[in-house]
Amino acid sequence: MAVSELRVNGSRLRESLERMAQIGATPAGGVQRLALSDEDKQARDLLVSWFDEIGLQITVDEMGNIFGRRSGRDDGLWPVLMGSHVDSQPRGGRFDGILGVMGALEVLRTLAEHGVKTRRPVVAVDWTNEEGSRFSPAMMASGVWAGKLDRDWVWARTDTAGKAVREELERIAYRGDAPCAGRPFAAYYELHIEQGPRLDREGRTIGVPIGVLCVHWYDVYVDGLANQVGPTPMEGRADALVATAEMILRVRELPSRMGGNMVATVGEIQNEPNSRNIIPGHVHFTVDIRSWDDELALLAWEDLKAGFASVASSHGCAIRMEETLRVQHVEFDTHLVDRVQSCAEALGHSTLPMVSGAGHDASYMALSGPTAMIFVPSIGGRSHVEVENTTWEDCEAGANVLLLCVAQSAEE
Amino acid sequence: MAVSELRVNGSRLRESLERMAQIGATPAGGVQRLALSDEDKQARDLLVSWFDEIGLQITVDEMGNIFGRRSGRDDGLWPVLMGSHVDSQPRGGRFDGILGVMGALEVLRTLAEHGVKTRRPVVAVDWTNEEGSRFSPAMMASGVWAGKLDRDWVWARTDTAGKAVREELERIAYRGDAPCAGRPFAAYYELHIEQGPRLDREGRTIGVPIGVLCVHWYDVYVDGLANQVGPTPMEGRADALVATAEMILRVRELPSRMGGNMVATVGEIQNEPNSRNIIPGHVHFTVDIRSWDDELALLAWEDLKAGFASVASSHGCAIRMEETLRVQHVEFDTHLVDRVQSCAEALGHSTLPMVSGAGHDASYMALSGPTAMIFVPSIGGRSHVEVENTTWEDCEAGANVLLLCVAQSAEE
Repeated sequence: MAVSELRVNGSRLRESLERMAQIGATPAGGVQRLALSDEDKQARDLLVSWFDEIGLQITVDEMGNIFGRRSGRDDGLWPVLMGSHVDSQPRGGRFDGILGVMGALEVLRTLAEHGVKTRRPVVAVDWTNEEGSRFSPAMMASGVWAGKLDRDWVWARTDTAGKAVREELERIAYRGDAPCAGRPFAAYYELHIEQGPRLDREGRTIGVPIGVLCVHWYDVYVDGLANQVGPTPMEGRADALVATAEMILRVRELPSRMGGNMVATVGEIQNEPNSRNIIPGHVHFTVDIRSWDDELALLAWEDLKAGFASVASSHGCAIRMEETLRVQHVEFDTHLVDRVQSCAEALGHSTLPMVSGAGHDASYMALSGPTAMIFVPSIGGRSHVEVENTTWEDCEAGANVLLLCVAQSAEE
Repeated sequence: MAVSELRVNGSRLRESLERMAQIGATPAGGVQRLALSDEDKQARDLLVSWFDEIGLQITVDEMGNIFGRRSGRDDGLWPVLMGSHVDSQPRGGRFDGILGVMGALEVLRTLAEHGVKTRRPVVAVDWTNEEGSRFSPAMMASGVWAGKLDRDWVWARTDTAGKAVREELERIAYRGDAPCAGRPFAAYYELHIEQGPRLDREGRTIGVPIGVLCVHWYDVYVDGLANQVGPTPMEGRADALVATAEMILRVRELPSRMGGNMVATVGEIQNEPNSRNIIPGHVHFTVDIRSWDDELALLAWEDLKAGFASVASSHGCAIRMEETLRVQHVEFDTHLVDRVQSCAEALGHSTLPMVSGAGHDASYMALSGPTAMIFVPSIGGRSHVEVENTTWEDCEAGANVLLLCVAQSAEE
């Protein structure tokens, strides 16, 4: 059988996903499989046993990343990598991350059952702690692998209970011996749910992201004057929450003014003293700006900053603004992006070129070598919630695109 | 000496206030004397010892209210009452409440040292837990006295540590035997700091409140759709915080549209999941509306309610609104209000007719008999904070107005 005629086994893929969804299953149909928890260990053990069943060479590195390698005809060539993560958000969904790992497993199972020997080795990988919800930052292990984060610093990161990453890696027996250090690769593919509504809304099956938006985080502190609400007339109040409300609306309007795939959000707000009969005296809130155009995002912030200052002053409030995070946008490899597009078309799937608004392990991988992603629809655009859903047909479609892309890259 | 020529001893009043300010003194110059705390007990003990020094007949009732009674020429007549509270806010100020109690003490000391025998008995009172910050609701003991709150219900109210009012009254040995039940009185006067900026701004010495604004509390719940910020385009978001921001601005603009001494405030807000990279899915916030005109306040809420519904729907959010509290406005006794005005003028003080935006023990007393208040300036309008301040001259001026009013009422 020609490699281009190979197809994954959709039922087997579904069964694997359903089996994984039992680990950390939540009553409302999601999963909670926090990084380095007992549930994460269970999922890893199952993954390793599946890798083992098809004779992969298994390596666990010192960050707990799990690699399952299938030899190629020329084992000295740079391998083709594919993967994602088995950890989840708290009360997260059954597809985020795990689809990319099960998709990679299914690709290797398919190659194995058809006895296909690729030119290059093909490696499936599970990256430790992509989500970052138990231990921050997110994507910490692919970050170390890509040389962008320091291993010892990451090992020392703690959860809210004070447990460190290294300690927890050891507890679940996934601190391997292999150094966590990137080695050259021919291609990295990551199959993932879109986590946004576009494919679902437009009725397309395969999203072809050209890269990941930049992420800029800011913290804003507004200081007014707390006072009793009753005896303090409206005139002359310095109400930090009213000033903040105007700022929130400015953030909301920003992207339509700036253009360029921009999204801007106030996700977090703390109000003090937060008492129903006291005029708010202090507010802290966050601003998240994402764009394909790093410069435009900076311009947008300059625009907001000036606007915020004038709003604050018109309300008699003081304001302090801090930059908290600045991650540049990431462009995927043109050649691989084109391949995702053409393989999807060859399989008869409708496609949509897009950008990824969220970071992925692929963001770090793209800094180390040729990288691309394959998106499948998120029903209603929901993710990081228990109702997160993707049809089995779309999962299978995404895995077939992955198979074809990997097969092509593995012959180059 | 004619009673109209009597004056309080300003230095003695200041010394009493300064001595009280040592009990629960905070580093930043305020006091923390929470109801039924050890500090409250110390202040009560000191007050009782001072009452005792001038031979008052002391009664403690079952709610811990302390009465110091000075006999009149005709002891069978309804007495003249005056007082306020010795408890404070957490990290509160040195004048709120205690001024009215020390003012009443100073009035009785002045009558005593001049050997003035009034026609009616005169009684100074300290009401338990006016602030309501440790045990809610506020003004609980005057509420029981006025027959508006149930004694056993109030006794069972607990603080955040689970201690009940009755238990704490017993612990500090201030659960008296006398029933807490209102008896007829000829007049009740309460000297208090304004807690607002008007007297200070306009350079007047004595505020003459005609009553207390109504208080309406509402709770609003906005439900949008939480989603990851990156992959979710601006179009089609249901951002509960953005919708709330528009509602907050509507609340801010409401009083200028409605008129009628109205103030309207959003003091409290909770945002969920309150994560910087998740679109806010649920917001709860409070609305506090106060007005002299109860009907106007209701109309204002109807106006807001319609506005909120339309804002919510324009953002694809659901909304739920609840009424939490409705207290009608209270009018003080015209005769006594006129007396406060004329006594202040007789003493050569500038005055300002006003309304009280905050509730006081006088709010409950006004439901039981003729009641009026005397306000003195709050510097910068600040109260419930450690920097709360009033000049000693203004404290003395207020106490002299109290003395004159009480003396007149006690002869009627």
